[in-house]
Amino acid sequence: MSQTRAFAAHAADQPLAAFTFERRQPRPDDVAIEILYCGVCHSDLHFARDDWGMSRYPVVPGHEIVGRVTAVGDEVGKFQVGDLVGVGCMVDSCRHCQPCRDGVEQFCLEGFTMTYGSDDRHDGSLTQGGYSDSIVVSEHFVLRMPEGIDLASAAPILCAGITTYSPLRHYGVKAGHKVGVIGMGGLGHMGVKLAKALGAEVTVFTRTEAKVEEARHHGADHVVISGDPEQMAAVAETFDFMLDTVPVQHDLNPYLAALKYDGTHILVGLLDPIEPAIEGFNLVFKRRVLAGSLIGGVPETQELLDLCAEQGITCDVEMIDIQDINTAFERMQKGDVRYRFVIDMQSLKKTDAA
Amino acid sequence: MSQTRAFAAHAADQPLAAFTFERRQPRPDDVAIEILYCGVCHSDLHFARDDWGMSRYPVVPGHEIVGRVTAVGDEVGKFQVGDLVGVGCMVDSCRHCQPCRDGVEQFCLEGFTMTYGSDDRHDGSLTQGGYSDSIVVSEHFVLRMPEGIDLASAAPILCAGITTYSPLRHYGVKAGHKVGVIGMGGLGHMGVKLAKALGAEVTVFTRTEAKVEEARHHGADHVVISGDPEQMAAVAETFDFMLDTVPVQHDLNPYLAALKYDGTHILVGLLDPIEPAIEGFNLVFKRRVLAGSLIGGVPETQELLDLCAEQGITCDVEMIDIQDINTAFERMQKGDVRYRFVIDMQSLKKTDAA
Ligand SMILES: [Zn+2]
Ligand SMILES: [Zn+2]
Ligand SMILES: [Zn+2]
Ligand SMILES: [Zn+2]
Repeated sequence: MSQTRAFAAHAADQPLAAFTFERRQPRPDDVAIEILYCGVCHSDLHFARDDWGMSRYPVVPGHEIVGRVTAVGDEVGKFQVGDLVGVGCMVDSCRHCQPCRDGVEQFCLEGFTMTYGSDDRHDGSLTQGGYSDSIVVSEHFVLRMPEGIDLASAAPILCAGITTYSPLRHYGVKAGHKVGVIGMGGLGHMGVKLAKALGAEVTVFTRTEAKVEEARHHGADHVVISGDPEQMAAVAETFDFMLDTVPVQHDLNPYLAALKYDGTHILVGLLDPIEPAIEGFNLVFKRRVLAGSLIGGVPETQELLDLCAEQGITCDVEMIDIQDINTAFERMQKGDVRYRFVIDMQSLKKTDAA
Repeated sequence: MSQTRAFAAHAADQPLAAFTFERRQPRPDDVAIEILYCGVCHSDLHFARDDWGMSRYPVVPGHEIVGRVTAVGDEVGKFQVGDLVGVGCMVDSCRHCQPCRDGVEQFCLEGFTMTYGSDDRHDGSLTQGGYSDSIVVSEHFVLRMPEGIDLASAAPILCAGITTYSPLRHYGVKAGHKVGVIGMGGLGHMGVKLAKALGAEVTVFTRTEAKVEEARHHGADHVVISGDPEQMAAVAETFDFMLDTVPVQHDLNPYLAALKYDGTHILVGLLDPIEPAIEGFNLVFKRRVLAGSLIGGVPETQELLDLCAEQGITCDVEMIDIQDINTAFERMQKGDVRYRFVIDMQSLKKTDAA
């Protein structure tokens, strides 16, 4: 066992604070990783505050982890000490069910092991995430950081990136497709870049004129002000796909109406009841599809990292120290971040000094 | 022009009554048809009563039409006088847009011409349906009745049948798939037979024990009482497809939970707002799909008729005289029909005699 420095939530109503705990010694298939950077995801905040009623404390959030291998178990074949690696939202799964064999471990029939907040499948301990200086993960769930990728801005690829890329790939988005992206946060701005990388013509839907320039900066071909009925009417029945990254309740009907027949509206952020109600005719009359999508599997995540390195796609990030995490949570909740906070984990050392 | 005897609704609040009007002389691509049988669809009732706010009176309902060719236009190549034919929900479309070229005329970008209640694309007259002794339709929208098919019980294939068959084919339902069918009316009982014909293992979901035997009679392998939480829990995450034929609001969440990851819930009857609200997580966490589907295209409808003839699949019908149509509407509204009323159009002659 080795002492791990971290920041943890100790209760739903308390700010995150310094916390020290022990990571396991690497098992034969494990990789031990010194964490360099960790992205800050909305899920981290929801878990810290027990918004989903499933948190156990203390919880160390963080599932957009980039680091360097410091030790490997005897059976590890893919990684060596010194390798630059990543860990996303999953650290284990059953490994033998059909979805696991198909590389969509997020749909493991026994449930995947979350990077934090899950019971480890072997020793039953509570998994703890990347707001810490080290992590130990089975090599199967460790991603290779491709050469030349910017490590800090690559961290959010491991959740925000794969969450938007996976459905685009699953549904075969390609050149000639018209893709709408709804919401311009951490997920949305990656959605724009990745849909463009796949060759699609991309339109950003935003409520505010203020975001028009930003959207174009990320590569959007068009921007539609979603609150303007004329602009919405002008795009009726023109889209093949909508990538809907909005995590709060909103009316899907105007977006469904903007889909062609056989068009697909993809939800990646909305877990709540879908209200206002979807009009059945919006699906039936044009054979439209409303689909959900959840992060992505290990092979697909590696493919995405490689694509990002190759095409120079990065997440726009704002670097913070771990000591700023509570402020970052507050700002994130207000939408005041462009587009992802990433923690420089070197800052953990300051807590020691203090 | 020739005099056509019919039954029409003359206002939303009046019963259907005898009505005489003129059909056009066949245009070069037209087929004139003596109507032998016409199925009674829920849409007929909705149109007669203006439930959808789009009815123009008088309206002659009926879009499950089987008859015999009595005349053909100069350019007609597919049909001859004496041929047994069918007409479904569509009698025209633009013929040149991509969906028309793809044989999914129901998604014609200019809107298809409904068998009744639409403006004819050429002379602007109001189309009138199959509760009549004859109809004139472009050969492109006329189906061939395959040899040996029972004409009366084949009529509902043209709407109820194709409405359930089209999505099963579109989504590639085949042997090895588990399909749930929700609702056991005109659509549902055809859904069971057709999913079985495609090789699927079929489970009927019904609210009442009373329908268990019926469901098995139609070929269902299993029946689940949807109101029994234990039975529903036992089938969680086991279905590839749900074919949801229920036309009134109902909670989709228990059925979504019964789908495997990547499973698809197909709505064919629900046009209203989807309430209670769908839980976003039911779609997102398992990458499930909620899809609509609308009738089917001409080639697919011909394929279905041929399949039904080949495999001896029929719709279970109750024959009525046209004079009983108002009673039939009332019984249909109460669900008191197994499973489709079909009008014997010979009965129209009685109205003359009276
Ligand atoms: Zn995340
Ligand atoms: Zn598994
Ligand atoms: Zn119908
Ligand atoms: Zn067309």
